[in-house]
Amino acid sequence: MKIGIVGIGHGKFGNRSDATVQELAFEPFKQAIEDTENLRRKDINALIVGSVPEYHMQRSLPGVVAEYVGMNPKSTWLTEAACASGSAAIRTAYMAIKSGMHDIVAVIGVQKMRELSTQEILALMGRVGDVQWESIFGTTFPGYYALYANRHMYQFGTTKEQIAQVAVKNHYYGSLNPNAYFQKEVTMEKILGSDDVAYPLKVFDCCANADGAACILMTNEKLAKKFTDTPIWFEGLGSASAQMSVLRRPNLVEIPSAVEAAKQAYAQVGVKPSDIQVAEVHDCFTIAEIMAYEDLGFCSKGKGGKFIEEKQSYIGGKSPVNVDGGLKAKGHPVGATGVSMTIEIVKQLRGDAGKRQVTGAEIGLTHNVGGIGQYTFVHILRR
Amino acid sequence: MKIGIVGIGHGKFGNRSDATVQELAFEPFKQAIEDTENLRRKDINALIVGSVPEYHMQRSLPGVVAEYVGMNPKSTWLTEAACASGSAAIRTAYMAIKSGMHDIVAVIGVQKMRELSTQEILALMGRVGDVQWESIFGTTFPGYYALYANRHMYQFGTTKEQIAQVAVKNHYYGSLNPNAYFQKEVTMEKILGSDDVAYPLKVFDCCANADGAACILMTNEKLAKKFTDTPIWFEGLGSASAQMSVLRRPNLVEIPSAVEAAKQAYAQVGVKPSDIQVAEVHDCFTIAEIMAYEDLGFCSKGKGGKFIEEKQSYIGGKSPVNVDGGLKAKGHPVGATGVSMTIEIVKQLRGDAGKRQVTGAEIGLTHNVGGIGQYTFVHILRR
Repeated sequence: MKIGIVGIGHGKFGNRSDATVQELAFEPFKQAIEDTENLRRKDINALIVGSVPEYHMQRSLPGVVAEYVGMNPKSTWLTEAACASGSAAIRTAYMAIKSGMHDIVAVIGVQKMRELSTQEILALMGRVGDVQWESIFGTTFPGYYALYANRHMYQFGTTKEQIAQVAVKNHYYGSLNPNAYFQKEVTMEKILGSDDVAYPLKVFDCCANADGAACILMTNEKLAKKFTDTPIWFEGLGSASAQMSVLRRPNLVEIPSAVEAAKQAYAQVGVKPSDIQVAEVHDCFTIAEIMAYEDLGFCSKGKGGKFIEEKQSYIGGKSPVNVDGGLKAKGHPVGATGVSMTIEIVKQLRGDAGKRQVTGAEIGLTHNVGGIGQYTFVHILRR
Repeated sequence: MKIGIVGIGHGKFGNRSDATVQELAFEPFKQAIEDTENLRRKDINALIVGSVPEYHMQRSLPGVVAEYVGMNPKSTWLTEAACASGSAAIRTAYMAIKSGMHDIVAVIGVQKMRELSTQEILALMGRVGDVQWESIFGTTFPGYYALYANRHMYQFGTTKEQIAQVAVKNHYYGSLNPNAYFQKEVTMEKILGSDDVAYPLKVFDCCANADGAACILMTNEKLAKKFTDTPIWFEGLGSASAQMSVLRRPNLVEIPSAVEAAKQAYAQVGVKPSDIQVAEVHDCFTIAEIMAYEDLGFCSKGKGGKFIEEKQSYIGGKSPVNVDGGLKAKGHPVGATGVSMTIEIVKQLRGDAGKRQVTGAEIGLTHNVGGIGQYTFVHILRR
């Protein structure tokens, strides 16, 4: 029995001091219901919330969200896998439907990051690294990804310009996405001239903390046609973990959980990387997108810099990636990100992506990394 | 296809400053594997961690736990439903196996509460109530449950002595449980003479914050017999939500999510409350256990005080409840609690509960409440 998506909703990402966290969640939930044909709120059997709880004044979000969106007394709980919390929620919803426990499940990814200062978030996020051996000594997320970038440059000759090209591309596509935090293009000069964060990463190599929410409605093959003419199906769902501590990773130029999760998903669907027509990958930092090209097999290990330099990840290239702007331009409300990625793939496979449409896309992929690679979820979707 | 438990492990609850959170998790994980016949770690396909993330210095626990217990690169993520996080993890694992996504899943409930002071935890827990309308004005968990207690006393004539009798019972059974935080009996006089926390609740009406971890290994009917002669089956799994804000609840003398979740579980199994031979209920405060008798249908609404006064929830009574000491005597490491409840039922149904065995128990129930009733999970297990 196939499981698919019959409704999508995506709020504006960015500074959302206009809304409480439950109001933020309601916006895409309502859109997703309106996106279906005749699916009513009472048809939904369960609500899975993807979020990292600790960034909000309000804790235990499913309680407040379920009440606010009118889902009581239906089943609800939260999933957390750091920045991949939204994809963990999708995987949970998939299992809920596949198991026959629930027929129709709403997934809401939601995060209001901006209740805290950047410094507070940086400190809290650092604690998603290994506290006992690493973050206690001052490691931060930009620091971890700078380690990856330095090693990639050293080992493969990747250049700062190649890395910065990811930001050029994603800000270009972000300029076409009305839900993105940043909707204007950025030049190579501006990126390379921006302030250092952690060498070689500069301000424009880092995604921004953002508020935001996104929602998908999922159901089984039997019911899907009732609610939409264009269900988009989950065909492969890979999920893997890697060492918490980067000290114990086999190397610093790949995310082992991403390699493993991609392998699982490709095998389940029986496709190869070159069959993927459009992909959303976890570009929390520019170097992360380059590693993703390689970990997903869009190019071989070490060739990611060349891949973006040749514009192979642009529309028209071998593997269009993050053509909605990615985390880089959309912003990264952590719990919402995996759901947002999925929504872009749904739009692409429906042929509804407007100016950023990849012509004729029938198969797409999401790659959502939690923490500094402790978790990766890779989902393959098909029209 | 039935889903059951083939291995259990339960650490000592209490002050566990001897262990990091990952060491705490490893202890019952190892025990659970040793509890099976020949199940090896590499047979386990996924690890679901039930925990409330924000009480630890270390965030995103599945990362550090999966690495420490040796589960990389297997799939892992966290579930949170406040104090019912452990039961949300069990429900997730059940769906994972039932859906065919994973064959053998480890569930670890783990919480190290004592890294924070009681005041810090009280403040953080208050934020599991509605922040916008309630906790901002100073509501705390003891305060919420005191509201329930006052209303119960007013409406049904429930007495302080009846409420305190819950603590007498649970500390008596706790004295028989080597994993309990508190292993000695407490007299009615001592309870009624203890300091006020929130009228009418006194110190001995409140469960204690504790460190602790518990683990179960779950699999399907086809594989279970390979690993144990006495699998214990999940037969009913109810899950429901209620208003975040108690202001919007229909009344203050029941937990609506508990009533609904119990109804679901009974209907799935086709049993009635009087068929349940042993139950573990969420006695975060003594009054909560009295409401649980009623919400689960062990007695009618308003008769809970009389039920405990007549010792109907003792072994030998109509519905033995919390014969392992409950949260009251075991302590309440929030993520671990739902898993700990399940383990006691497994021991009872296996006939392995020693001095606290309910003779001939074949069907048992767990009732795990999250927050102040925003979530309840009710599971019915059978030998």
